[in-house]
Amino acid sequence: MDFNINTSKLLQQSRAVDLDPNNLYDVLIIGGGPAGLSAAVYAMRKGLSSGLMGTLLGGMVVNTASVQNYMGFKYVEGSELMDRFVEQVKQFEIGIKEYAVVTSVKENGNIKEVTLKDGSVYKAKTLIVATGKFPIRLNIPGEAKLSGKGVSYCTTCDAPLYKDKTVAIIGGGNSGVESAIDVANFANKVYVIEVSDTLRADHVLDAACKKMKNIEFLLAHKAKAINGEKRVESILLEDLTEHQEKKIEVDGIFISIGLQPNSGIMKDLVAVNERGEIIVDCNCRTSREGIFAAGDVTTVPYKQIIIASGEGAKAALSANDFLLKHT
Amino acid sequence: MDFNINTSKLLQQSRAVDLDPNNLYDVLIIGGGPAGLSAAVYAMRKGLSSGLMGTLLGGMVVNTASVQNYMGFKYVEGSELMDRFVEQVKQFEIGIKEYAVVTSVKENGNIKEVTLKDGSVYKAKTLIVATGKFPIRLNIPGEAKLSGKGVSYCTTCDAPLYKDKTVAIIGGGNSGVESAIDVANFANKVYVIEVSDTLRADHVLDAACKKMKNIEFLLAHKAKAINGEKRVESILLEDLTEHQEKKIEVDGIFISIGLQPNSGIMKDLVAVNERGEIIVDCNCRTSREGIFAAGDVTTVPYKQIIIASGEGAKAALSANDFLLKHT
Repeated sequence: MDFNINTSKLLQQSRAVDLDPNNLYDVLIIGGGPAGLSAAVYAMRKGLSSGLMGTLLGGMVVNTASVQNYMGFKYVEGSELMDRFVEQVKQFEIGIKEYAVVTSVKENGNIKEVTLKDGSVYKAKTLIVATGKFPIRLNIPGEAKLSGKGVSYCTTCDAPLYKDKTVAIIGGGNSGVESAIDVANFANKVYVIEVSDTLRADHVLDAACKKMKNIEFLLAHKAKAINGEKRVESILLEDLTEHQEKKIEVDGIFISIGLQPNSGIMKDLVAVNERGEIIVDCNCRTSREGIFAAGDVTTVPYKQIIIASGEGAKAALSANDFLLKHT
Repeated sequence: MDFNINTSKLLQQSRAVDLDPNNLYDVLIIGGGPAGLSAAVYAMRKGLSSGLMGTLLGGMVVNTASVQNYMGFKYVEGSELMDRFVEQVKQFEIGIKEYAVVTSVKENGNIKEVTLKDGSVYKAKTLIVATGKFPIRLNIPGEAKLSGKGVSYCTTCDAPLYKDKTVAIIGGGNSGVESAIDVANFANKVYVIEVSDTLRADHVLDAACKKMKNIEFLLAHKAKAINGEKRVESILLEDLTEHQEKKIEVDGIFISIGLQPNSGIMKDLVAVNERGEIIVDCNCRTSREGIFAAGDVTTVPYKQIIIASGEGAKAALSANDFLLKHT
């Protein structure tokens, strides 16, 4: 089957404009990842005057080498997929501010005011927060250099790439043990590396993990460095019991020591859970009227491009319903 | 920007097999639309033995001429988008049964049993119900022939196609009045045609609609026929007060008299709301353990391809979590 896509009918130059501090937007979207971009398309298609601000259009997906679980694409580079999302947004006359670092969000009556690091202030009737999560880094040598080249932070995304390979998982908490199970379904051999001398995962996960014969636990081991030229070749560990270093050859390394939501700017305005995720209902409504949230920054389960994109659409349609009732 | 998609790396023949009545599947997915297909990809990527059955692979989207709000595609034919979804599913060794008409779903202990019209029975540990909704038809002459050629059932999908055009909305309930507002943001003129002598929409919608100067209400009017050769040209109405027929020239007609969930087969097993939608939590769990539901058949707000696709992924990941805890 030939997958030529007929984009010619609508192909046009960007119609996006600069975000305007003098405008009172119907909706202002904070975050340029899948959830934010999807919200932007849906808001514009509802005829809402909309603004979008983000540190990076495309968000974290831009750094994902291979995406195989976004429906519509058997295989696509993360950066290409996000280019397509961004083009789709820019076909509308939407206000965009890239490289925007938000320092505060306030309410002035019913108006939401977003202040950036450069001192500029933007105003809107509703807000969609789609600021995402960032995976907590190990901060060891080789990690940044080999990120996307064998170092990954998402097993749901990348586990199938390691069929019959050898893989190390860093982290023995829930996220590490879940990752190990994901990968062990494909890989030949999986090492779980954990600094403490016991796994810290829930019992059910722990039990499921221990049943799998190709998982080996290296407790009381600390990751020191990741080696490799073009791709990951090995990992250097410190055995904290024997006080000696050891090197293990691996094809891939998943760092699964948790994700942290970018919700700091919102904490005074909306309710968050114990992990800092913005609490939303199934309509992406937060605890505060007129403020919506979507994607990885929220309590939505599972952090996936297709899920975040769906949530972004929901948030925009919810904001539209809200505006219909309140203006 | 050139959007050549690199599918060659994974391009391969279908690996799908026939659904096997002798197999006990980890997960059985009922429904071949966006939610079901997305669930299938996510289930297979988790290493679950999976089966998929549907009346039509691709679901209702196959009949949508133009999709402009699925992220990743500025413009794509509904049938092409669904071909891509189906190809993505068939890269896995998944059991598939197309043209499957389900007559009953039962529980036998913890095992779910799905019986088809042809008498065959399929078994699974978990079930994902993604059977969708169907728009209620008017059943008047011209409707079926011009469906997708000016006759549409989804304003969120197609309203922007009618910029500066003349459009008729059939239905003065919530769904009709919402449709009218959607379309009036783009169209030059919108007629709302309602058989009763008053609008039946919620007050807020009613009020919002009446504010728009380009909407004209034709109450106590009944749609009799849709005319047009290649596309919609006019609609024939009966004025129920004056007892006379009138013809209005229109470029498009939205039939918005409601959608009905395909939940009949599930009603004895899981809780549904007053509209017949299967009640799910934010993790796509139904009222019954081990049965999940996703997409338009559920209480999820807004009926959109991108939302249903996200929900399908959620349902599969929830089913995976469930299996991890219960086996």
